[in-house]
Amino acid sequence: MTSVHIVGAGLIGASIGIGLSAEGWAVTISDADAEAARLGQSIGAGTVRTADAPAPDLVVVAVPPAAASAAVLDALRAWPAAIVTDVASVKAPIARAAADAGLGSRYVGSHPMAGREVSGGRAAQGDLFKARPWVICRGEAPSDAVALVRSVAHTLQADVIEMAADAHDAAVARVSHAPQVAASAVAAALGPLHADDVALAGQGLRDVTRIAASLPAMWADIARLNSHSLVATLDHIIGDLEDVRDADDIGEALTDLIERGRMEVARIPGKHGGPTRDWIPVTVIVPDTPGQLLRLLTDAASADVNVEDITIEHSPRQLVGLTTLHVLPESAPALVDALTAQNWEIASP
Amino acid sequence: MTSVHIVGAGLIGASIGIGLSAEGWAVTISDADAEAARLGQSIGAGTVRTADAPAPDLVVVAVPPAAASAAVLDALRAWPAAIVTDVASVKAPIARAAADAGLGSRYVGSHPMAGREVSGGRAAQGDLFKARPWVICRGEAPSDAVALVRSVAHTLQADVIEMAADAHDAAVARVSHAPQVAASAVAAALGPLHADDVALAGQGLRDVTRIAASLPAMWADIARLNSHSLVATLDHIIGDLEDVRDADDIGEALTDLIERGRMEVARIPGKHGGPTRDWIPVTVIVPDTPGQLLRLLTDAASADVNVEDITIEHSPRQLVGLTTLHVLPESAPALVDALTAQNWEIASP
Repeated sequence: MTSVHIVGAGLIGASIGIGLSAEGWAVTISDADAEAARLGQSIGAGTVRTADAPAPDLVVVAVPPAAASAAVLDALRAWPAAIVTDVASVKAPIARAAADAGLGSRYVGSHPMAGREVSGGRAAQGDLFKARPWVICRGEAPSDAVALVRSVAHTLQADVIEMAADAHDAAVARVSHAPQVAASAVAAALGPLHADDVALAGQGLRDVTRIAASLPAMWADIARLNSHSLVATLDHIIGDLEDVRDADDIGEALTDLIERGRMEVARIPGKHGGPTRDWIPVTVIVPDTPGQLLRLLTDAASADVNVEDITIEHSPRQLVGLTTLHVLPESAPALVDALTAQNWEIASP
Repeated sequence: MTSVHIVGAGLIGASIGIGLSAEGWAVTISDADAEAARLGQSIGAGTVRTADAPAPDLVVVAVPPAAASAAVLDALRAWPAAIVTDVASVKAPIARAAADAGLGSRYVGSHPMAGREVSGGRAAQGDLFKARPWVICRGEAPSDAVALVRSVAHTLQADVIEMAADAHDAAVARVSHAPQVAASAVAAALGPLHADDVALAGQGLRDVTRIAASLPAMWADIARLNSHSLVATLDHIIGDLEDVRDADDIGEALTDLIERGRMEVARIPGKHGGPTRDWIPVTVIVPDTPGQLLRLLTDAASADVNVEDITIEHSPRQLVGLTTLHVLPESAPALVDALTAQNWEIASP
């Protein structure tokens, strides 16, 4: 039986511990804060590690990003036969630290992407990683070391993606870190507006700025560790914004930027890795009383229409919301007919 | 009975015509394209205007933004007793043109904000504006002229907001035009990534770039008409991005920006004009088979929990999706219990 030691009993570490323990793995856990380690044990994340415990086969370092490199080196040195992985969201600096210490053959990088909903540090649970991407960066490690880390991800039912550490860091700068910076900058630019003016905000602004509500915790570490790729991405974004701002014809410059953006948005995978589906939006006026959403979906189902996605736009001043059901193009006419027959008001085709 | 003439039989003009005609208003319609005007008449948007028709009480100019000022002046001169309004999404340049011509007392600006879902130019309909904001900029016009335009918005069941034209233009630059530019720039910055790297995109990137899929039509005109406010807003955003990019400590700079962004996001109105509610997200793993969403909401309703909002995150590679139900804090424990009892897998607390 593979034995695993987890360094760090925070949300990610404890969740990994719970998930592996539930599947029968032998898990020990430790934390710089002894109380946190005891709490981890009490919720099933593993046994608090004692000084005489046998050396683990695998160490999972689950500490804040800024502390990850040092903790990985500590683990590689403490257990000279163990494979060590970590969970930081920036991978190249840690791989470099392991390689520079001559210990790269026992280090495999991991980045479990558990999603923003859990960044607030709520209670750990074993299925945190289910159906989520889990990036593995093998670096200098041999296949059996990689296989051991893959088995952790598979046991937690995560979706493994292997890539090089540099490519990972460049990618997350563009798909995650820079979008966070840009969303915060768009939000900050609301500063000069009066409250009545902000009320003109529509769904577009809400979408763009949703992640701007993120807590700043960890972003400072992430930005510092991935500063090279983040700065390159910000250069790219700033350059495009300057081209619009400074253009002789701002309309032409914006059209060019929108066209380029549209080409890239089309590459963001939609459902099941395929291209984004061309779903048809059917927008319905829904009274804001309990149970209306259920009634709407029931009426949609009675027409044998499967709803692929839902967006709800709450009206700022009225007791109604605009709910948009996204359906396959061939289903849209039947849906509109069925909802109209049930006296729903369709707000836009 | 108030008589209305609508100049422009596109989506907005025809939708206004249908909505007013349905409520018994006397509506005529015209379009530079005679065929478009005839089509408008055939779908109930009003009678095609003839040369001998009596002068209208009110003219609604519903032409593309770049043509709005000239069309408004034409209407003010053609019908010297009529009140004239328009529907362009930039208001100050048109008000200035009317005032400069000495005709400002008969011009009232309108900006019906019909929402992005309809920007694609699908078929017109009379309830396009229901529960949507409709900004009115009175400028130099007397109260009876403003009341006439308000009655149009009220008849179409829109939500009237009165503000000054300059304030409107400054506001939409920050809540709409600059966010569009920024979203397109974030999307364009994906350019250097391979397809496999783009697959790391999570819900955050999808949210930020959703409006980057917008068609560029009209954005060129809007940017040109509102270039002063748009450039000022882009200056603000670029400055904040540069402060992060060029900081000695990128982590500290980003933390500062995120903190400022969070303060502003909190000012975006949530449901019914109040502050954004602190809903609790409950994320559920939902198999991708028809009817599951309905089953989920039925089970939520059986616990007497009202779902305030839903977000669906389709997993890029697996046949499951993560569906998040947003509920009032006091409802969350009951919802989790009820769903667990019905064998739903909760993905994060």
